[in-house]
Amino acid sequence: MRLLIVNPNTTVMMTEHISEYARQYARSDTEIVGVNPQKGPVSIEGFFDEAIASEAILDLLIQNRENYDAYIIACFGDPGLFAAREIMKAPVIGIAEAAMLTACMVGYRFSVLDIMERTRPQIEDLLGRYGFGHRCASIRAVGAKVLETTQDPEIIKEKLIKEGKKAVEEDGAEVLLLGCAGMAGLDKSIERALNVPVLDGVVCAVKIAEGLVDYGISTSKVRAFKYPEPKEFKNCSPAISFTAER
Amino acid sequence: MRLLIVNPNTTVMMTEHISEYARQYARSDTEIVGVNPQKGPVSIEGFFDEAIASEAILDLLIQNRENYDAYIIACFGDPGLFAAREIMKAPVIGIAEAAMLTACMVGYRFSVLDIMERTRPQIEDLLGRYGFGHRCASIRAVGAKVLETTQDPEIIKEKLIKEGKKAVEEDGAEVLLLGCAGMAGLDKSIERALNVPVLDGVVCAVKIAEGLVDYGISTSKVRAFKYPEPKEFKNCSPAISFTAER
Amino acid sequence: MRLLIVNPNTTVMMTEHISEYARQYARSDTEIVGVNPQKGPVSIEGFFDEAIASEAILDLLIQNRENYDAYIIACFGDPGLFAAREIMKAPVIGIAEAAMLTACMVGYRFSVLDIMERTRPQIEDLLGRYGFGHRCASIRAVGAKVLETTQDPEIIKEKLIKEGKKAVEEDGAEVLLLGCAGMAGLDKSIERALNVPVLDGVVCAVKIAEGLVDYGISTSKVRAFKYPEPKEFKNCSPAISFTAER
Amino acid sequence: MRLLIVNPNTTVMMTEHISEYARQYARSDTEIVGVNPQKGPVSIEGFFDEAIASEAILDLLIQNRENYDAYIIACFGDPGLFAAREIMKAPVIGIAEAAMLTACMVGYRFSVLDIMERTRPQIEDLLGRYGFGHRCASIRAVGAKVLETTQDPEIIKEKLIKEGKKAVEEDGAEVLLLGCAGMAGLDKSIERALNVPVLDGVVCAVKIAEGLVDYGISTSKVRAFKYPEPKEFKNCSPAISFTAER
Amino acid sequence: MRLLIVNPNTTVMMTEHISEYARQYARSDTEIVGVNPQKGPVSIEGFFDEAIASEAILDLLIQNRENYDAYIIACFGDPGLFAAREIMKAPVIGIAEAAMLTACMVGYRFSVLDIMERTRPQIEDLLGRYGFGHRCASIRAVGAKVLETTQDPEIIKEKLIKEGKKAVEEDGAEVLLLGCAGMAGLDKSIERALNVPVLDGVVCAVKIAEGLVDYGISTSKVRAFKYPEPKEFKNCSPAISFTAER
Amino acid sequence: MRLLIVNPNTTVMMTEHISEYARQYARSDTEIVGVNPQKGPVSIEGFFDEAIASEAILDLLIQNRENYDAYIIACFGDPGLFAAREIMKAPVIGIAEAAMLTACMVGYRFSVLDIMERTRPQIEDLLGRYGFGHRCASIRAVGAKVLETTQDPEIIKEKLIKEGKKAVEEDGAEVLLLGCAGMAGLDKSIERALNVPVLDGVVCAVKIAEGLVDYGISTSKVRAFKYPEPKEFKNCSPAISFTAER
Repeated sequence: MRLLIVNPNTTVMMTEHISEYARQYARSDTEIVGVNPQKGPVSIEGFFDEAIASEAILDLLIQNRENYDAYIIACFGDPGLFAAREIMKAPVIGIAEAAMLTACMVGYRFSVLDIMERTRPQIEDLLGRYGFGHRCASIRAVGAKVLETTQDPEIIKEKLIKEGKKAVEEDGAEVLLLGCAGMAGLDKSIERALNVPVLDGVVCAVKIAEGLVDYGISTSKVRAFKYPEPKEFKNCSPAISFTAER
Repeated sequence: MRLLIVNPNTTVMMTEHISEYARQYARSDTEIVGVNPQKGPVSIEGFFDEAIASEAILDLLIQNRENYDAYIIACFGDPGLFAAREIMKAPVIGIAEAAMLTACMVGYRFSVLDIMERTRPQIEDLLGRYGFGHRCASIRAVGAKVLETTQDPEIIKEKLIKEGKKAVEEDGAEVLLLGCAGMAGLDKSIERALNVPVLDGVVCAVKIAEGLVDYGISTSKVRAFKYPEPKEFKNCSPAISFTAER
Repeated sequence: MRLLIVNPNTTVMMTEHISEYARQYARSDTEIVGVNPQKGPVSIEGFFDEAIASEAILDLLIQNRENYDAYIIACFGDPGLFAAREIMKAPVIGIAEAAMLTACMVGYRFSVLDIMERTRPQIEDLLGRYGFGHRCASIRAVGAKVLETTQDPEIIKEKLIKEGKKAVEEDGAEVLLLGCAGMAGLDKSIERALNVPVLDGVVCAVKIAEGLVDYGISTSKVRAFKYPEPKEFKNCSPAISFTAER
Repeated sequence: MRLLIVNPNTTVMMTEHISEYARQYARSDTEIVGVNPQKGPVSIEGFFDEAIASEAILDLLIQNRENYDAYIIACFGDPGLFAAREIMKAPVIGIAEAAMLTACMVGYRFSVLDIMERTRPQIEDLLGRYGFGHRCASIRAVGAKVLETTQDPEIIKEKLIKEGKKAVEEDGAEVLLLGCAGMAGLDKSIERALNVPVLDGVVCAVKIAEGLVDYGISTSKVRAFKYPEPKEFKNCSPAISFTAER
Repeated sequence: MRLLIVNPNTTVMMTEHISEYARQYARSDTEIVGVNPQKGPVSIEGFFDEAIASEAILDLLIQNRENYDAYIIACFGDPGLFAAREIMKAPVIGIAEAAMLTACMVGYRFSVLDIMERTRPQIEDLLGRYGFGHRCASIRAVGAKVLETTQDPEIIKEKLIKEGKKAVEEDGAEVLLLGCAGMAGLDKSIERALNVPVLDGVVCAVKIAEGLVDYGISTSKVRAFKYPEPKEFKNCSPAISFTAER
Repeated sequence: MRLLIVNPNTTVMMTEHISEYARQYARSDTEIVGVNPQKGPVSIEGFFDEAIASEAILDLLIQNRENYDAYIIACFGDPGLFAAREIMKAPVIGIAEAAMLTACMVGYRFSVLDIMERTRPQIEDLLGRYGFGHRCASIRAVGAKVLETTQDPEIIKEKLIKEGKKAVEEDGAEVLLLGCAGMAGLDKSIERALNVPVLDGVVCAVKIAEGLVDYGISTSKVRAFKYPEPKEFKNCSPAISFTAER
């Protein structure tokens, strides 16, 4: 099967890094393609960055909507996820949702190791929407920038271990979630250091996507995620306007 | 004072219609300016339309961020609201939030008269986020399209009265919210027909904005709504890139 | 327009202090009248004080029910608010509700600076009723008595700054609410000290009341806030008995 | 032991009716005394009536606070309950709380048979406060007035059976709560008719009070229900002013 | 009346200890019989122990289902409670539920003094199920084993006082619940030490059971707690198979 | 990899039926083994049946705990799930949890097609525990017995289509969950009939289990799901006692 991972920011190195790590856990018959938009922020660190990135994510998805069996949005805020489900029939998985769902099956409480203090409300917002508020022991910001995760993984790893340890010992966390797609590749070494499951949302999403495709399940098109209403999109890209004419 | 009302869709007639009605309830010393983006969907009827509209809303807000005392996003899904609060210091008000908050002060339960069945989850999502789930008696879709609200107000009005009556008599609603900015101008005649308060979110937002400006309250910039992190926005408009260089 | 502010306790100095501060933010065409009952506790610091004060608040409101465009109950526990809405057609605003609603539009999380530890449950109760539990970062008691707020504002201000700083730095608050009407006049200096919005519920209520009156919205009389059932009130004041004969 | 049942309205016939029925289920060594205030509404059917009744309830309780082992407030809205707990060391039980707690131990879902549609929000409010929202199958108003319950019990009984049957068959109720103290004496015949437990809150409260007294448990005086702060109560009754001087 | 207390573990000394203490607070006309299964764990300290104990609890209850007026399951996790209600007509009370319900009537917030950190999720689970999440100030593990409670009560008492003091002073608890049936007999001395009500769930359950029996209320058999569907139970005890043939 | 599916009831035909269907969606390198206990109810239709089945499920799991990569409990009430997680290091998946989690990724609201009215509270209980209350549009009982699902699949299928249609059209469901493991094999034909995704929890669990094993994630052993405390289990099976001696 073929999975498309969309890195919503415009940093190619991060796209490659994420995709490469995802391939390590994909099945041998799963082809992983990673893409990122040409337009938008080089990293996503707030509601504004998410909003600016969303159109380009959707454009990319529409352009690729015949070619893949499932799609993954690889940013821990799940930007554009519900909009993406409207335009796609194949499953679209957000990595925060995937990580939270997976955590619930291997522990009672999880903590999210978030990139910075300011994005805590975004994660709280997702917890409320997805219904996992009572399963979250804490959100701990490691005090970093998104691009540092790929550039200085060793420094980030130390910060993650330090905050993760506090999450386990002080907050009651039993599972840790890496709160940024750029942290790909750090999960297993932190897991060894702290002796609790550590989840990378991208890998979780790949495994869930493989399962949905195997089972032949696609997005329900009867209400919330119906295809968009046909209409004119002024001055938009051909992909988005094509949607309009569908 | 000066208020900017952003109609997030690209339909100029609706922008004018909304602004005109807002002026009827604005104070004499309040200047209302209505704008809409040049780019994006002609109406907003789902998660996808919202996501596509968001960038243009934000672009417009940034271009105008020195010129107004407060800003209103005039679409009942409050698209881009939290992102807008990040880039602005002046207050930004969403019309759904404004209508729900206002309703809570004149009744125990309200119902939303929604445009179509598919957008019900968006409103449920907002109710959860804003904390008003238990104050909402029902969401009733009138079975219309957004653009019809301005084009055929009499037909829409009949539908609103019919569903509003059911909301009051069957669901226990005490206040009715018009679930689309395009319904501007219908509030008072429905109120007379049904004898319960009927709220147009745009008017609610204007009155709240005036109050915030009088009181000298602006958006808190310490955590969730800090200015965006400085970074590069590839291939984005000058306004958005300027934000990045702030 | 004319607004009546009811200070629910019997301390005239506080009534004057509150009304005077409210006038600073009222519009030039808004007349603010402050009253307090002749009967009841000199301050409200618990469920008992609230209950004892309620009858006198309602009596005052009934006596004045033809004369004002909107009414404000100026005590952070919102005593008698729902009862007042039953007897009035014009809007009745509680200052806790007004402050919480306003806070939600300029920040993601607020903290309440409460007067004393024992009243924390009353505020928690209001948060639950109004639906803002998840928007409240913390309630911090400053350890004072209500009457001290007006008598020793400088001492109270220092305490508020100290606890407010902790709320922002340790609890994640982005907006601070003054948890007692007697703290009127302290908002702006604390705001300058801590650089986050600080809200006085009385001012919030005045601005919301002005907005409701402008929009012509009054209390819904169809269910929860219907006029009281006609009945005899034994040995009650003429005002309350008059209600009974309505 | 001695229990005081306070009927919060001023209708002596209802006080006698309630007390008499309570005695049927009290233990032989329990003395039940029923009282009602001399002042206030003849029935309680809304937020206003509750607020007006509260002071007199509290006055009565203070006057009697040395003489009984526990106290019961016999109105399904539990008016003044938290205030009463502040002034008393002995347990004070509200009949709505008592009925809801009892229902949870003999069924998964209960319905409340409420007196009239307008008081539904009061019961919803209590459900939220006490934490039983998810255990309540429905609130069904029988469409009556409080005083009719004692005057025309047969008519009320028929209405209760009719709505109770719908609650069981359509709403999934497994236990029924009589939503008004005046319905005393109807529980067992409805129980026989519908074959589900039917709870009179007054009896539930008597049994819980007996249990608390046996166990030697009294109201916690460390935070929410500390004795009121000492202060002046202007123009209040000797009982209430005495509290102030305590 | 006759009450059966089932200690779900197989430690006879604990059964005797619990029953003896329960008798101190039972009415003189209440006969308390304590039993425990012959099969299963010697203590219950987790989900696994609970699951293993449940069958034997149910077997015991069925064997005794004609002989008692009410039944108590004396383990703070309330193991098998809902299953027990299916097979019994007489009331079945769990001690955690009984303690939480009782606490709500004498304080606003309670804390549970839990036996060990690992069982915290079980108690959180119960709080969610019963609807008391917002009434719980904290769960504090005293760091002990269940069997130590009966063997070394003085050591346990010191630990309970230490953690209980923190619960009151740091967490805002107004009532303390003993989180293990084996702590029977420690309530009153901790209450004297900390000056807040301290509740032993077994005593609470006895008092509630006496009340239910007096009032003639039994378990509702119409939906959740209907008798089990008739069916074959392979290789099960005669008691359980008899149920099947009912 | 090797997965063990435990059918918690003692009906071999159902075990075979479930396992066979699971194999259709398992990967070619996944070996599915189905087992059921020798002891316990022939079907699980209530809290009592669940409780009786739990010990045998756990016994089976312990006996097999070295031999499989992941374990599935194939009953929609997820009986014994948390207990199983205590004794296992490898992942243990419940089919209700698996189906609910999967549903959330392909629709906004799901309905559960439950076997009978009496088990509705069990599913509501799970929804609360797992945090999916707001994602559940309805629970609709088809009015059948568990064993009929395997014996008369055509009749059950018609009932499922009938209730599923109502769930979609009247309740707003976008995804349907088969509320009984015995309904295996009916998903795809109902999906074709109703044109919304229909999920069999067993298949969902198989796909999730494969993903967890691929990713190398096992149950967190630090708090809620630590191995059971070492202790004596009187008169229990060798497997359970062996656990005790671990």
